[in-house]
Amino acid sequence: MAFDITAGNNFVITTTNRKEIKSQNFEKSVKDGITLYILNSVDQILPSATRERIDFLPHYDTLVKSGMYEYYASEGQTPLPFAFAELIDNSLSATANNKGIRNIQVRLLFDESQGKSAVAVIDNGRGMTSKQLNNWAVYRLSKFTRTDDDIESDHSGYVRPPMVPRSLNSDISYFGVGGKQAVFFIGQSTRMITKPAESQDVHELMLSKDDFEKKEKNKEAIYSGFIRNRKATDSMHITSEDERFLHSLIVEEKDKESFTAVIITGVQQAHVQYLKNYFHLWTRQLAHIYHYYIHGPKGNDMTATKEVGPFNNIDIEISMFEKGKVPKIVNLREIKDDMQTLFINTAADCFEFKAHVEGEGVVEGVIRYHPFLYDKETYPEDVSCTFNTVEDDEEDCYSVDKGARGKRPIFECFWNGRLIPYTTVEDFEFCAPPKKRGLVALECYNRISGVLFTNDKFQVSTNKLTFMDLELKLKDKNTLFTRVVNGQEQRMKIDREFAMWLKECHEKYDKQIKFSCYKGTITRSDL
Amino acid sequence: MAFDITAGNNFVITTTNRKEIKSQNFEKSVKDGITLYILNSVDQILPSATRERIDFLPHYDTLVKSGMYEYYASEGQTPLPFAFAELIDNSLSATANNKGIRNIQVRLLFDESQGKSAVAVIDNGRGMTSKQLNNWAVYRLSKFTRTDDDIESDHSGYVRPPMVPRSLNSDISYFGVGGKQAVFFIGQSTRMITKPAESQDVHELMLSKDDFEKKEKNKEAIYSGFIRNRKATDSMHITSEDERFLHSLIVEEKDKESFTAVIITGVQQAHVQYLKNYFHLWTRQLAHIYHYYIHGPKGNDMTATKEVGPFNNIDIEISMFEKGKVPKIVNLREIKDDMQTLFINTAADCFEFKAHVEGEGVVEGVIRYHPFLYDKETYPEDVSCTFNTVEDDEEDCYSVDKGARGKRPIFECFWNGRLIPYTTVEDFEFCAPPKKRGLVALECYNRISGVLFTNDKFQVSTNKLTFMDLELKLKDKNTLFTRVVNGQEQRMKIDREFAMWLKECHEKYDKQIKFSCYKGTITRSDL
Ligand SMILES: Nc1ncnc2c1ncn2[C@@H]1O[C@H](COP(=O)(O)OP(=O)(O)OP(=O)(O)O)[C@@H](O)[C@H]1O
Ligand SMILES: Nc1ncnc2c1ncn2[C@@H]1O[C@H](COP(=O)(O)OP(=O)(O)OP(=O)(O)O)[C@@H](O)[C@H]1O
Ligand SMILES: [Mg+2]
Ligand SMILES: [Mg+2]
Repeated sequence: MAFDITAGNNFVITTTNRKEIKSQNFEKSVKDGITLYILNSVDQILPSATRERIDFLPHYDTLVKSGMYEYYASEGQTPLPFAFAELIDNSLSATANNKGIRNIQVRLLFDESQGKSAVAVIDNGRGMTSKQLNNWAVYRLSKFTRTDDDIESDHSGYVRPPMVPRSLNSDISYFGVGGKQAVFFIGQSTRMITKPAESQDVHELMLSKDDFEKKEKNKEAIYSGFIRNRKATDSMHITSEDERFLHSLIVEEKDKESFTAVIITGVQQAHVQYLKNYFHLWTRQLAHIYHYYIHGPKGNDMTATKEVGPFNNIDIEISMFEKGKVPKIVNLREIKDDMQTLFINTAADCFEFKAHVEGEGVVEGVIRYHPFLYDKETYPEDVSCTFNTVEDDEEDCYSVDKGARGKRPIFECFWNGRLIPYTTVEDFEFCAPPKKRGLVALECYNRISGVLFTNDKFQVSTNKLTFMDLELKLKDKNTLFTRVVNGQEQRMKIDREFAMWLKECHEKYDKQIKFSCYKGTITRSDL
Repeated sequence: MAFDITAGNNFVITTTNRKEIKSQNFEKSVKDGITLYILNSVDQILPSATRERIDFLPHYDTLVKSGMYEYYASEGQTPLPFAFAELIDNSLSATANNKGIRNIQVRLLFDESQGKSAVAVIDNGRGMTSKQLNNWAVYRLSKFTRTDDDIESDHSGYVRPPMVPRSLNSDISYFGVGGKQAVFFIGQSTRMITKPAESQDVHELMLSKDDFEKKEKNKEAIYSGFIRNRKATDSMHITSEDERFLHSLIVEEKDKESFTAVIITGVQQAHVQYLKNYFHLWTRQLAHIYHYYIHGPKGNDMTATKEVGPFNNIDIEISMFEKGKVPKIVNLREIKDDMQTLFINTAADCFEFKAHVEGEGVVEGVIRYHPFLYDKETYPEDVSCTFNTVEDDEEDCYSVDKGARGKRPIFECFWNGRLIPYTTVEDFEFCAPPKKRGLVALECYNRISGVLFTNDKFQVSTNKLTFMDLELKLKDKNTLFTRVVNGQEQRMKIDREFAMWLKECHEKYDKQIKFSCYKGTITRSDL
């Protein structure tokens, strides 16, 4: 009766897809929690609407594949270094309040006699409590949504860092996804080992693709697991031969007050090959990304005497261990051929400016002049690309228009001090080649490089490869550009200031014959 | 004893963070499922390792913010049209097997007298069963991971579509995230309404930010909800004034055999403004993205007589309703100024080729020649950018090197027939300006545009804005390029073929004085 069916009437039991349940398919079709209909006929119109309870837990690929289609190649750059950068970002955040040296080690453990290929990123930062470690695993739990309303929360109610030059604030966590994306882009399984200063216990959590698959197969809760709490240096639980290297790694915990170690195993073979074969290339790329963190706000000016300050206490050390080979070890600060180092050290002069964007957005900018010297441009060639976008120097007049900067945009862009590698800005009105004849020859506009440093009021995409809308905001009509001289914003019109500066650079630094090409304007009456 | 504490000994109870539990903080600290220690003292070293059970359910921002930092601006392009494209992609997939017209409507419901601003995307495709609708909501459940091992599964065990020209296979679902990213980028709340052909029932599911927040607050299961199963045209459940427009929308269900309607409410005000103010711009952009779906493999050649075929049965109709105004309605096929239409209709000739990449990757390519006619280039200006990247035509000799294509790369890239908007390919060796003097003047290389069509062996990023590694693969040394003439791959060397073709184009179509500039090579002994 309740089902609108009177006694003696025929009825059928169906699924919400209107499949009739019969004894043959009962076993297969009727599961816990499933909604069934009792109807007069399979195709009866529903007398009234029904509510069917559903669950839609994100698939575990949310974690396992999160990075897979995020780090894409652009202009010949293999994106692997950008996945490493996510882990270095986390270590920079974690060491922000360190009193002494901020030590970040990226170790490539490729010695087969010690186990399977692994990547470890280890820092001496604040570490995590078990609650924080638990939160690490929660996809999309960002510092902005974490609450501190109970004693076991991680107390990280977000406080915006104060303004610092070049926005080198170490505040480069944002979405609650970076670490997970990176580890699952690099490998198949990750062990997070961490110890906060407040406690003697080391906390350890393992996430792995295999484990997720197993849980799904056994119909266990997908997003449940165990944190292992143990005393430092205790590696009893490491029983697999594949992870033998962990014993010595865990022994190192001995004298550490606090630390975090991210250990990635199941590293894709293609990655291992790339990391081995292009060690110089990708370490240089990392040196480029963190240039201003490792060298300070002025960058790697090799002529300047290094001042001791808050900005040369970051050691980012990359090491690679292969069987029977001497380990390769490099501190990113020692790298001398990353793009920023080249730009800084070929520059004859700088033009500094600031852009104020609606809503607290502030961008610091530097434009550098790379003069023409006797027989060649000093503008550095683009080394970040594996393709040759810049043609080799030629005798032919064809290559003239590609001189110096060529087609490359002027500005590289840093967010909270860290390079966002795929966003560049071509130019601004004030520094673009003028439409009518300007004060200097057009070539001079091809001799400038530039850097933009934005604060956290600008947003980046989840993979930190691009800005969301930097250029749109900067090119907004309400954006205000001012020249900066000795740290002071000037009132004069920036267009004129820039043109004058460029003229001065040209006259002072270029060693060449001026206007070797211009022969006057001819009107072609025959066309 | 079991805790290593003898009778009479002092002991403390602590959390795993070593906070002592006392009567004052008992209420606050002790929650269901929490792990506690019984220790001799708060800072005692753990006698043996402990296992602490944790849960790490992805935060609901996984859905709600999935799109927020995905659709980024590039080169002045606001990304909103690319979010719409995700929904159109889904509709294209869903209508792939339609017998008659494939109808996809994007309706902007901006008439306040009918409720709050909403966006509806409606198609006459296959619709979804309630199980499929449930699966729609599962983040990262892709067609590749869906199983069909029980009667209630959605039976979608993936079958790769056959090869078709330009890879127009309508198979543009991939990650199981696009729809969710798009709807939550556009608005705050979505109602999916759908009916498959096999059943009379309409299924309806609502996901909203508010609802997730409410569930979190009430500590309810975050990823649970209800599907409403009802008869077609029954809008009894729509009680909110904000959604008044739904009643007439639901009445339309009357004669539909199958359909899906995605109705997004809580549309961001900035989006509404953009959609209203730039209607022409973003509809043109959509026409560009789906150019080959709506016009067929040859594109919108306005001189050709339209053949009736499998490729002009896709109607993508955009309509905008505002209070007191005549609705704006446009079928994307009518748009005549999208970039592809401009390229096709200014081209004097085409050069077709194919690239075979290791591992079944196939790319079809077309290069078009846009001749110089008397006093101007016919190469179309870039209309997709709101910034003026191409300078206005000038008298000044400065602008010479920007002629025609200027700095723009040659190739736009389509994946399974659909534009991937942010990936372009500058050139290939065979069609790049030669380093030494070639057969034709350098300007000719600036008069070519190109299109690449890849099959599904190439991967795109989750937001479908970029390819993962198209250029890396194409520029691999094992990639094989061949010219295609009348559908036949040629054996001749493509470099030579291309150079000859370009020369022919130049001689046949350019109406200009040849080599007006070249004056011989001069060695500058003074430098
Ligand atoms: N090396 C580390 N030391 C201490 N805490 C860490 C470390 N790495 C990660 N965490 C913690 O785990 C959280 C999650 O890291 P994850 O990189 O996944 O996201 P996020 O850094 O918050 O955001 P983003 O998506 O921008 O990277 C961090 O917010 C931080 O609290
Ligand atoms: N208009 C529609 N008609 C029928 N089924 C649909 C429609 N839209 C979505 N679906 C179903 O919902 C699923 C999820 O859609 P969603 O766009 O979120 O991911 P996807 O299309 O599978 O992958 P991608 O991330 O590439 O978009 C689709 O695979 C499809 O089965
Ligand atoms: Mg991070
Ligand atoms: Mg989709």
